[in-house]
Amino acid sequence: MPDNLNIARGARLWPIEEIAHRLGLPGEAVEPYGRGIAKLDLSAVDALAARPRGRYVVVSAITPTPLGEGKTTTAIGLVQGLQQRGHTATVTLRQPSLGPTLGLKGGAAGGGYSQVVPMERINLHLTGDIHAVTAAHNLLAAMIDSHLYHGRGVDLDPESVCWPRVMDLNDRALRRIVIGLGPRADGVTRQSGFEITAASEVMAVLALADSVVDLRRRLGRIVVGQTRQGEAVTAEAIGAAGAMTALLKEAIKPNLLQTLEHAPALIHTGPFGNIAHGNSSILADRIGLHGSDFLVTEAGFGADMGAERFFNIKCRASGLVPDAAVLVVTVRALKYHSGRYAVTPGRPLPEGMQAESPEDVRAGASNLLKQIDNIRAHGVTPVVAINAFPSDFASEHAAIVDIARKAGVSAAVSTHVRDGGAGAVELAEALIEAIDVADEAGNGFRFLYPDEMPLDAKIERIATRIYGAADVAFSPEARRQLDAYQQQGHGRLPVCVAKTHLSLTADATRPGAPEGWTLPVREVRLSAGAGFVYALCGDIRTMPGLGADPAAAHIDVDANGEITGLF
Amino acid sequence: MPDNLNIARGARLWPIEEIAHRLGLPGEAVEPYGRGIAKLDLSAVDALAARPRGRYVVVSAITPTPLGEGKTTTAIGLVQGLQQRGHTATVTLRQPSLGPTLGLKGGAAGGGYSQVVPMERINLHLTGDIHAVTAAHNLLAAMIDSHLYHGRGVDLDPESVCWPRVMDLNDRALRRIVIGLGPRADGVTRQSGFEITAASEVMAVLALADSVVDLRRRLGRIVVGQTRQGEAVTAEAIGAAGAMTALLKEAIKPNLLQTLEHAPALIHTGPFGNIAHGNSSILADRIGLHGSDFLVTEAGFGADMGAERFFNIKCRASGLVPDAAVLVVTVRALKYHSGRYAVTPGRPLPEGMQAESPEDVRAGASNLLKQIDNIRAHGVTPVVAINAFPSDFASEHAAIVDIARKAGVSAAVSTHVRDGGAGAVELAEALIEAIDVADEAGNGFRFLYPDEMPLDAKIERIATRIYGAADVAFSPEARRQLDAYQQQGHGRLPVCVAKTHLSLTADATRPGAPEGWTLPVREVRLSAGAGFVYALCGDIRTMPGLGADPAAAHIDVDANGEITGLF
Repeated sequence: MPDNLNIARGARLWPIEEIAHRLGLPGEAVEPYGRGIAKLDLSAVDALAARPRGRYVVVSAITPTPLGEGKTTTAIGLVQGLQQRGHTATVTLRQPSLGPTLGLKGGAAGGGYSQVVPMERINLHLTGDIHAVTAAHNLLAAMIDSHLYHGRGVDLDPESVCWPRVMDLNDRALRRIVIGLGPRADGVTRQSGFEITAASEVMAVLALADSVVDLRRRLGRIVVGQTRQGEAVTAEAIGAAGAMTALLKEAIKPNLLQTLEHAPALIHTGPFGNIAHGNSSILADRIGLHGSDFLVTEAGFGADMGAERFFNIKCRASGLVPDAAVLVVTVRALKYHSGRYAVTPGRPLPEGMQAESPEDVRAGASNLLKQIDNIRAHGVTPVVAINAFPSDFASEHAAIVDIARKAGVSAAVSTHVRDGGAGAVELAEALIEAIDVADEAGNGFRFLYPDEMPLDAKIERIATRIYGAADVAFSPEARRQLDAYQQQGHGRLPVCVAKTHLSLTADATRPGAPEGWTLPVREVRLSAGAGFVYALCGDIRTMPGLGADPAAAHIDVDANGEITGLF
Repeated sequence: MPDNLNIARGARLWPIEEIAHRLGLPGEAVEPYGRGIAKLDLSAVDALAARPRGRYVVVSAITPTPLGEGKTTTAIGLVQGLQQRGHTATVTLRQPSLGPTLGLKGGAAGGGYSQVVPMERINLHLTGDIHAVTAAHNLLAAMIDSHLYHGRGVDLDPESVCWPRVMDLNDRALRRIVIGLGPRADGVTRQSGFEITAASEVMAVLALADSVVDLRRRLGRIVVGQTRQGEAVTAEAIGAAGAMTALLKEAIKPNLLQTLEHAPALIHTGPFGNIAHGNSSILADRIGLHGSDFLVTEAGFGADMGAERFFNIKCRASGLVPDAAVLVVTVRALKYHSGRYAVTPGRPLPEGMQAESPEDVRAGASNLLKQIDNIRAHGVTPVVAINAFPSDFASEHAAIVDIARKAGVSAAVSTHVRDGGAGAVELAEALIEAIDVADEAGNGFRFLYPDEMPLDAKIERIATRIYGAADVAFSPEARRQLDAYQQQGHGRLPVCVAKTHLSLTADATRPGAPEGWTLPVREVRLSAGAGFVYALCGDIRTMPGLGADPAAAHIDVDANGEITGLF
């Protein structure tokens, strides 16, 4: 099989206007941005609103290994499979960050014959939306420090400023810095730092906004610090929210691309999967939902993280009701969750893990069963997608099908990476059947917790019901913060629990589905603009670092101007 | 007269493909990037190369006041005027930086009826090229700090690192920072800082590169520090040059837009006018030159700065020979150069300066005469363009025409801001006549200094011949650096003298054309990738700051999603 890059290069792109036509979009809504890419004017949302809504499907996964289990390829493969079955289907994905692309993992536009193209543009800048988020975020930061320097206008306590700067790169040396050194004209000296742009609240705001007016309002609500009297100081008070909105005027328009089989793909926004909700934009989902029979969206990390937030943060914000969920599983991940093997990115799998062993697969079933249960906790019955690898054995696939069947859910082997949509037809059929069954029972979707539940109880609900924790331990600081947010009227917000994605627990080294453990909540922060509170559990990095041999060192441009080494 | 924003909004844009057609470009070379904007594939350069070359015209100015004298509007008006005379004409401009746009001065896409549209996109991101430069620059910075952290590979002395980070905003608090604080995993602690992206060597490289291969080579040559043995360490040695090129693969393609009268406008790259050469890209000029009868390009600041570098850095790099120059002058600037008035941005002109006074105009003639002489020093005879303001008096325009005539050059009053191309027809005719006269004499263009002149002598030549200095005082550090560059084989590079643009001297408060003064050279730095050495004279800011009431605080988006306050 050719590598990702060569498959992508061999793709014959349809004119993007034809892809937009598949979505039922009028020509005026389509703004081409280079070959095979268009921005969709927000008038597209209105143009499609009167059309009936398609089915809303979220793709999630069991707790992933550090290698990833192929949620993106499965989501892409699935829409191609649905297409092969005669349906229209659109996939929505997050825009990959330059940090990981140039750091560890290379490109993030799917793989094999389930890719979105053109892959180089997706991985490098796309239409510049992440850069616009960086600019809007950092404008606010510059205006905050300018307020401190000029000492006019807003009363802002320098010690209280909780708005870092951001950069869309992995740059560990910027995590902790001191700014404003040197003569007085070089600003007020204080400690600060940079986070990666995906971690910016502005990114979460952009993903959750449903219009330019809503974007403007949410940006204004962002809290950047306090007055000396302890009152919240917002981006509105700093005078930045208007210009930030202007900077994001193009970025709020979803980006339309296509899969290798010419299904519409909307790649839009990229909020982090730990300190933010890790889902692509509501606006993109709306377009795809009203423009096709099926809208398939990928949620970040495992079902305990991305899917839980898809249900409780994204669907709560949008008012949209999901119809179905797909849970991606791999043989290697189940073997990993048996606790018998360790997996390290960039190194080959341990030899024992590559031998035929349905027994190892069964030994890891606890994680799969827990994540099935986590989807069901929201009144949705998932379909298990077995993302097949060439190194898998039929007996191992059979073991997974058996585990799923015993849990009362259907499972399908999907070979979409090797076979494109044809490899995902079985999965598509299982999905359609699951939706038919659910239709008969009536849509049972429910939130995990009501708005009016106090913030600490929401965290406890997520920890015990989803993660399988026995208890939650709040630090004194977290307690103080929760009380303050509750008193300030933020108690109705949903909660995003930031923990490692590599375990159901807050300890990345614990596979399976551990029980009897306690979730430690170190700190709680407010994203008032995005509209959630997030709880930091364990060591959460919001600025990754580069390894000793980063992906960037292997990327180049050849004599024909073609990019090499990006995959 | 309606304001800039309303004139721009009222514009009826032609499809960008029609503008490309005016340049003789095949459809394949045109990649639309939203309404009215396209990137031109570099195949456009090849497609046009066989066509005869048009006339190459640089627009410069007398030493500007802090308010600016309208070089951009004059360049745009002139191509519209040439069009009205039945010629094809293209304008090339730098992309404005977000820093000044959101800081002090608002939009930078011309004014009145001499604008490039769509103005919001020009001022906010355009096609994202500046952001791509930021990403490429900061990737190199992150990889440098990663080398220091991992301590593998290149031997790089941390004390020697001379590669800051960049951001396309005015943010004084980032001028001097300490990075890498905290635990070991958060990087190596050292002093550093941010500059504005326009000041990045990567921006100068992009502006001077004539192909992707040339870009790759130049990026690899960038010197970021030294080994402990004093050998230069390059971006190539850091392993960053390939990925930097990949990040700039779209940014190297010139951006095509149109003026209000549908003349092609190429807005591409934005190197600083003090520490870099302050001219738009060579690639854009090549396309316009072979695609129209006239290519009019604007060079930053006064003729002592932008035009001198246009001749000695940009034309030296491209091998292109200029045919003519336009020198923009205003009544208010000549009154300012009389030394009788002070001008402050954001405040109304002093009352005395607004009274009819051809006498004040004559008293400021020394600067105009010196800048005419500076153009002539390169074998080119300029045409003086009097950029008319509503507050001017006919007697004052007559005084300027008289000054120019006595100096042996023609002058034309241009009302392009009020009247569009029709207001610049007289200027267009004067330009054509000047070219006719020059044609009879044969093109006399010459560099100010030969490659083989030593670096210090080049600086002395610029200071004495162009700035009118009596002498140059090199600091001991500058001397050491010049000797080192000379020894390392960089002696053949041209020199960029970084000084204030508000005076012919290095002291911003000295109007006119002072004589008998000494240029102080504090420090000399190497831009090995861009291919020049730059000399810092006086206090040169490479990261501006925001004022107490920045432009950003007045920018907003209204209920219809239209941007307000950006002009």
